[in-house]
Amino acid sequence: MKPRLEVLKTMRNIKVTIEYDGTNYHGFQRQTDGLPTIQQTLEKTLARIVKHPVTLNGSGRTDAGVHARGQVINFYTDCQIPADRLPLAMNSLLPPDIAALQADDVDTSFHAQFSAKRKVYTYHIYNSSTPTVFDRLYSWYIPQKLDIDKMRQAAQYIVGERDFTAFRAAGSKTKTSIRHIYRLDIDYVAPHLYITAEANGFLYNMVRIITGTLVYVGKGKLSPEAVRRFVESGKRVEAGPTVPPRGLCLMQVKYSNQ
Amino acid sequence: MKPRLEVLKTMRNIKVTIEYDGTNYHGFQRQTDGLPTIQQTLEKTLARIVKHPVTLNGSGRTDAGVHARGQVINFYTDCQIPADRLPLAMNSLLPPDIAALQADDVDTSFHAQFSAKRKVYTYHIYNSSTPTVFDRLYSWYIPQKLDIDKMRQAAQYIVGERDFTAFRAAGSKTKTSIRHIYRLDIDYVAPHLYITAEANGFLYNMVRIITGTLVYVGKGKLSPEAVRRFVESGKRVEAGPTVPPRGLCLMQVKYSNQ
Repeated sequence: MKPRLEVLKTMRNIKVTIEYDGTNYHGFQRQTDGLPTIQQTLEKTLARIVKHPVTLNGSGRTDAGVHARGQVINFYTDCQIPADRLPLAMNSLLPPDIAALQADDVDTSFHAQFSAKRKVYTYHIYNSSTPTVFDRLYSWYIPQKLDIDKMRQAAQYIVGERDFTAFRAAGSKTKTSIRHIYRLDIDYVAPHLYITAEANGFLYNMVRIITGTLVYVGKGKLSPEAVRRFVESGKRVEAGPTVPPRGLCLMQVKYSNQ
Repeated sequence: MKPRLEVLKTMRNIKVTIEYDGTNYHGFQRQTDGLPTIQQTLEKTLARIVKHPVTLNGSGRTDAGVHARGQVINFYTDCQIPADRLPLAMNSLLPPDIAALQADDVDTSFHAQFSAKRKVYTYHIYNSSTPTVFDRLYSWYIPQKLDIDKMRQAAQYIVGERDFTAFRAAGSKTKTSIRHIYRLDIDYVAPHLYITAEANGFLYNMVRIITGTLVYVGKGKLSPEAVRRFVESGKRVEAGPTVPPRGLCLMQVKYSNQ
């Protein structure tokens, strides 16, 4: 039994924070059809470093074209590479649109998805009469003037613990659609508009539907009061459109309620 | 003679400020081999709008892979489109990595290159232990720690009116290599390092050689005093290497001495 115990003793659980430009990937999650995904690229890279196949856990999927500045993954290995040297090893092998920012040894019970308490997403809108060249892959361009005050007013009706059926993608199959949005901030640093949502979880396409709804308010197509009514009614058809993925970025995954 | 006079009367000179991501272009200047350039793309777009062939003047070339936030061009036309509507028309036809920011009617004597008094270039270095995903096409990644104070000290020896032979590309054929650098600022907003040079003109590769030299100083491979000596001696071989084009951006072209 001794060898087996030794294996158990040396088994490590490593948490890695990842940044990526999602433009050229078919989302985070590994796909069976061989299309390039973030997960698959990370697993191949880690396997080359730790010299055994790796199946990693991500904090959650991001859709095709969605970016991350703070995606979190974890994986198990008996490889002895020091955690603080892992990002350097990964970055020397990863393509330039994916980077490992930090790695830490964590308790074996840690799971990137199930241990997550909160996530923070930011949706970036470029609001100017001329389009942006340098942020074109990382923002949604809206030339029309937006009423920021009304957008902020509507956002306050969305904050809280409630049934977010109105803001979930049609055909979504999650058991419960109750989520708690702790904050929904609108930061305007002309010509950049950032919509930041922090919640204990998000339904499929939820941030992009919330953003579409707030943009409708900004354009005068919906009143803040109308948003309050359909947040309460929970009907998807009344919310705004799902906005393009390229403006969305997973900023942070929090593993404590702070 | 009347029709001819009318043509003369309606001939306009239009100045346009342009932003571009140079990653996918073989520089600014039109090439005879048909490779895509910024100038060629702009000329084709303008011809579609004004309904006649356009040959434009740029403030100067930028090399393959170099970007611009404030390139300036001018062209002549008898087309009657209002100048303030031209950017919208151009941006609806231009590829997403080129944008027109502003257009103005200017005096017929205005020439984007010959009327220019000063240019401002910024070189962007990303200085962190982990590489950047989102700025990877717009910065040069240096993981080593740099001595910013020494870089600033060396920069002061470069400022002024002098013969910049030490900082010109080999084989460059400009008549005089005397230029006046008004400022050479180093702004460090960790992990971003910006080297900004304002001058009455730049020799070929001059900003990239200056940057390479300052990075040598930052890494301790050259002392600020050594920089002062070879600025005076004017020998190219002693300066630092030419750094990659992707960190370089033409920020502004000034048409008055301010």
